[in-house]
Amino acid sequence: MQIDTLLINAHVLTMDPTFKQFKPGAVAIHEGSILAVGEQSSLEKDYSARETVDCKGRVVMPGLVNAHTHVPMSLMRGLADDLRLDVWLNGYIWPVEREFATPEFVRLGTKISCAEMIRSGVTCFADMYFYESDVAQATSEAGMRAVCSQSILKFPTPDARDYEEALDKTREFIKKWKGHPLIVPSIAPHAVYTTTPDILKRCAEMAIEFDIPLHTHISETALEVENMRDETGMPVVPYIKKQGLLEAKVLAAHCVHIDEGEMRTLARANAGIAHNPSSNLKLASGIASTWKMLEQGVKVGIGTDGPASNNDLDMFEEIRLAAFLAKGASGDPTTLPARQALEMATRLGAEAMHIGEITGSLETGKAADLILVDLTPLHNSPNFEREPNSTYAQLVYATHASDVTDVMVNGKWLMRDRNLTTLKETELLAEAQEYARKIDAFLLVRERSLLSKLVAVSSTTEEESFEVQAKVPVEDFEPILAALKKAKVKILRERHYHQFDTYFEFEDSTEGRIRYREDHFVEPDGSVSNVRSRLTLIGLNSERKFPHEVILSRSRYLAPATQSLRFYREYFKPVALSEIEKDRYRFLIEYKDTEFFMNLDNVTHPKLGKFLEIKSKTWSLSDADEKADLTAELISVLGAEADKAMTEDYIEVVKKT
Amino acid sequence: MQIDTLLINAHVLTMDPTFKQFKPGAVAIHEGSILAVGEQSSLEKDYSARETVDCKGRVVMPGLVNAHTHVPMSLMRGLADDLRLDVWLNGYIWPVEREFATPEFVRLGTKISCAEMIRSGVTCFADMYFYESDVAQATSEAGMRAVCSQSILKFPTPDARDYEEALDKTREFIKKWKGHPLIVPSIAPHAVYTTTPDILKRCAEMAIEFDIPLHTHISETALEVENMRDETGMPVVPYIKKQGLLEAKVLAAHCVHIDEGEMRTLARANAGIAHNPSSNLKLASGIASTWKMLEQGVKVGIGTDGPASNNDLDMFEEIRLAAFLAKGASGDPTTLPARQALEMATRLGAEAMHIGEITGSLETGKAADLILVDLTPLHNSPNFEREPNSTYAQLVYATHASDVTDVMVNGKWLMRDRNLTTLKETELLAEAQEYARKIDAFLLVRERSLLSKLVAVSSTTEEESFEVQAKVPVEDFEPILAALKKAKVKILRERHYHQFDTYFEFEDSTEGRIRYREDHFVEPDGSVSNVRSRLTLIGLNSERKFPHEVILSRSRYLAPATQSLRFYREYFKPVALSEIEKDRYRFLIEYKDTEFFMNLDNVTHPKLGKFLEIKSKTWSLSDADEKADLTAELISVLGAEADKAMTEDYIEVVKKT
Repeated sequence: MQIDTLLINAHVLTMDPTFKQFKPGAVAIHEGSILAVGEQSSLEKDYSARETVDCKGRVVMPGLVNAHTHVPMSLMRGLADDLRLDVWLNGYIWPVEREFATPEFVRLGTKISCAEMIRSGVTCFADMYFYESDVAQATSEAGMRAVCSQSILKFPTPDARDYEEALDKTREFIKKWKGHPLIVPSIAPHAVYTTTPDILKRCAEMAIEFDIPLHTHISETALEVENMRDETGMPVVPYIKKQGLLEAKVLAAHCVHIDEGEMRTLARANAGIAHNPSSNLKLASGIASTWKMLEQGVKVGIGTDGPASNNDLDMFEEIRLAAFLAKGASGDPTTLPARQALEMATRLGAEAMHIGEITGSLETGKAADLILVDLTPLHNSPNFEREPNSTYAQLVYATHASDVTDVMVNGKWLMRDRNLTTLKETELLAEAQEYARKIDAFLLVRERSLLSKLVAVSSTTEEESFEVQAKVPVEDFEPILAALKKAKVKILRERHYHQFDTYFEFEDSTEGRIRYREDHFVEPDGSVSNVRSRLTLIGLNSERKFPHEVILSRSRYLAPATQSLRFYREYFKPVALSEIEKDRYRFLIEYKDTEFFMNLDNVTHPKLGKFLEIKSKTWSLSDADEKADLTAELISVLGAEADKAMTEDYIEVVKKT
Repeated sequence: MQIDTLLINAHVLTMDPTFKQFKPGAVAIHEGSILAVGEQSSLEKDYSARETVDCKGRVVMPGLVNAHTHVPMSLMRGLADDLRLDVWLNGYIWPVEREFATPEFVRLGTKISCAEMIRSGVTCFADMYFYESDVAQATSEAGMRAVCSQSILKFPTPDARDYEEALDKTREFIKKWKGHPLIVPSIAPHAVYTTTPDILKRCAEMAIEFDIPLHTHISETALEVENMRDETGMPVVPYIKKQGLLEAKVLAAHCVHIDEGEMRTLARANAGIAHNPSSNLKLASGIASTWKMLEQGVKVGIGTDGPASNNDLDMFEEIRLAAFLAKGASGDPTTLPARQALEMATRLGAEAMHIGEITGSLETGKAADLILVDLTPLHNSPNFEREPNSTYAQLVYATHASDVTDVMVNGKWLMRDRNLTTLKETELLAEAQEYARKIDAFLLVRERSLLSKLVAVSSTTEEESFEVQAKVPVEDFEPILAALKKAKVKILRERHYHQFDTYFEFEDSTEGRIRYREDHFVEPDGSVSNVRSRLTLIGLNSERKFPHEVILSRSRYLAPATQSLRFYREYFKPVALSEIEKDRYRFLIEYKDTEFFMNLDNVTHPKLGKFLEIKSKTWSLSDADEKADLTAELISVLGAEADKAMTEDYIEVVKKT
């Protein structure tokens, strides 16, 4: 029979369920599919080919399957490292994505990643990102195979104002790509903590309607599981099952923190798992119990995760690490032997992605997705041939990505003798470097100003306010409270807080300082009913000074503190920290038709003592003049010694002492 | 000033204690040493060089320091994988070393490893093996720097009949190499469990006498520590301290299972630690707490361990894994950031090896040991330049060994534009392949015969014995014991055992079977006083049959079972297992001037019942004839029914039922 391509003189590892090998072996390829795999002598008799390739004794095996990644993120590789996940996401990745993620960005990042993956022997991957139609477009142009999953989140994303719009666009995306020879469209509710039950249900329905894979992140961190248990009383897998997710063909990334019951549930639902060993270590998420998942019959593939968090797309490194970690974590060096690790990175990975009938092994009828690997380099020598499993061990324990010489997807060569055929690396690299320059500039400007760093991580728009304020040390609050009752002052509102302030100081003190404040609302019975955290950027200079030590204070940019203190500490990188703790009775009062805040503060740590503070917001200079006079007057009315008034903030008093 | 070499247009990472960088930077080199490191403009003014090298913007940094390895073992890379440490060592590595490790083997393996290390940017390593003078010779010929440590063990080794000879030879080795410009000789008491207190003391004395490093394995596995605690009541570090080891300049490999007190002890003794992340995972030893060691002020370097257990010498992989594991194991992604991981692989590694004054950073006066690394390949793009630490992150998280382009040691180029200058790879590879072929053949012959596999792991020489034997089922032992007293039989010895037998069955049954037997010696009060384990290779066929179902049974090769049942199961890889448990009263008796063994067996699992067995060793056919007659007679004398006698072993009875 006349066929397209015949590979001969190969050491063929089929990675089929019986792990057949042929040496010297041959593979017959026609119209993108594998016609036959077997002994060279036999195939040479049966077929004559337009193209006969002498593989020179190299290994011919199925292309590697990268079961979880975010390919456009290659443009953010090395942007920021060695940070907490929340600092990295909130402080760097998301702000950059908000600014830069466009269809053009996504297509370029995808092509860069495709080039890197082809070079390292990957023929197929499962992606999850925004503008996924552009990922699909760029991938198909590169000639690679992919499950392309459009992300759905409950927040606004670079490609959708809300999740209704995201779902609508996803429907169009699926319709456009369904049936493509290389691309399998898929829907990706991002994770349980970034979606709602409604999103999960509707994603599952759409996946079932179109019979496509559903890709999601499951139990990546212990915190995710802990929060889920707190909120719903169950871990993540039962929760997604309750939302109907497991009715769909699920590909679950990570699963670092699932128990054996959850593994069984996933196995019964025929869900696949994508194990991401480098990413899980680098972000300190933990070590997934892959060997237990495999024992329970779950299809477990291996993924690199996004190149911004890994920081590369090197599947050989991931396979090796998957094997190493399983041994190290199980305490048994016979756990996850090389052949099984390689199975995860080929056939099992394809099955986990629900495209096992198309790719993942060299079997008649499957697509011709294969690679040639040279096992003769120095770092992989000598070759022992005694034991049939030693070739798997060579591939897993000593092969480098650069040992891949040729790559074919769907019968088409994407790399010959280490030369890419579908992508122009030099041009791609130049374009990528242009983005890096812009992103560096964007972040440099931001890092140069505390205010823009603050704005970058908070949802608040920047808002400047001016306050007239005065502060007087007092012996006791009782006389003031008594005077308050006698004077013509109306109390509009009264609250009792316990306040914990942490001040961040910076090298360039002219920028001011950042205050992280926790307000603990104290009820009359002494219990704490609520805690609120806020960030304030406080300018150093008072704008104007009035008589009686009343000042006009400027520029308080306020933002709700949605992240932890530790997050902000790592993000702002202050050179010094100071802490102040105080008890505050806060009154909103009306005096001569003007509203003031009156604070009775007892600063307990450090022990500064008791203070009366009067404050009022102001928006014009004449208003400020008038309020300054009233403030001085009010201090006298309340019986405090106006000549002891001071202009400094507590933090300044602390720093002087 | 006129100098040898000036490197210009470089991004210089000095890795000095303040982590100075220069971009564009330059390095001035003269007579093997670094004269100056700094801004290009400044160095170009000060020096004119015979050779000026344009580094094209590449990173110039100190060469990587591989702080623990066994370089000759490259010739055993991929020999056997995914095995328990004891199976791997006893079953494969040691038998092969006994057969093949010669000075020639060691020099070839060393050169192969040097070639691989030079290619991957290593300039300096700490070795430990046999024939270390040959390691030193080959290393100096390759032009690399090394601390070469001669192993001392309490057992015979390929290069010494006993440790006295090993110590004598080590003294000669040290004298020969002391003062060499590239080689620092060192002494290596292998580990606490392979040495004696006397060895440790004498090694420490010799290290102090010659002021050389002392290299050893410390607390690699939990078992090592557990055994040490059982034997001495203390963990390993206090034990070696007690032997005076910490008076020497110690380089301690592994330290996976040491506590913070031990870390402090090592820090105070200025000992170095070599962390081997891949090896520790692959052999399931565990994860060392490197970040705690560093906090305690210990100098921690990074090593690959031997290429037979890793399976390569890729330091970039080790550095990345060291950073990943510290994050994953500490649960904090900010642990061991890239810069610190790279510091471990350069300056700290050299300090751990006690040659920090010579190498490990680019500083004036140190040797010119440096590498050029290309950070522009696709898998490491784009480049963000905003943050000075991002270059360290690129090197640690995304650089591949193949990105190293040039390597210099002691001012001499060992690789230029990826071409080795001192070693001929093709020739080395051909020689290595020849060894692999021989080793494969050696192991194939061994694996083909159960007997040679048995001989390979046991210290016993092969020994064949023949037995005359007969067996009769009985109702009860009382009548036999009563008959014994009446008859003219002298009881020479009597013992009571409980026996647990595990039989290994093999595909080719003509080879016989292996029996693993545990004899529990039962005292008269019922307590077990001792347990003995033995391996026996049992030939299937009886040699000859006599009247009255007495047989001549052949070929019992006996060996003490020094390893666990699980070891032998993994090593022999039987296709099936059977177990038999029985209670045995064993009598050595004399009947008509002939010695016999009489066994009263109660086979309890499976329940076969009670048997009288008579056996006698024999060495000639006429002796066998005579004993066969006496055996039949003895059965009658003891009142058993001789016509019920049977020829089968218990295992055959079991297999029939």
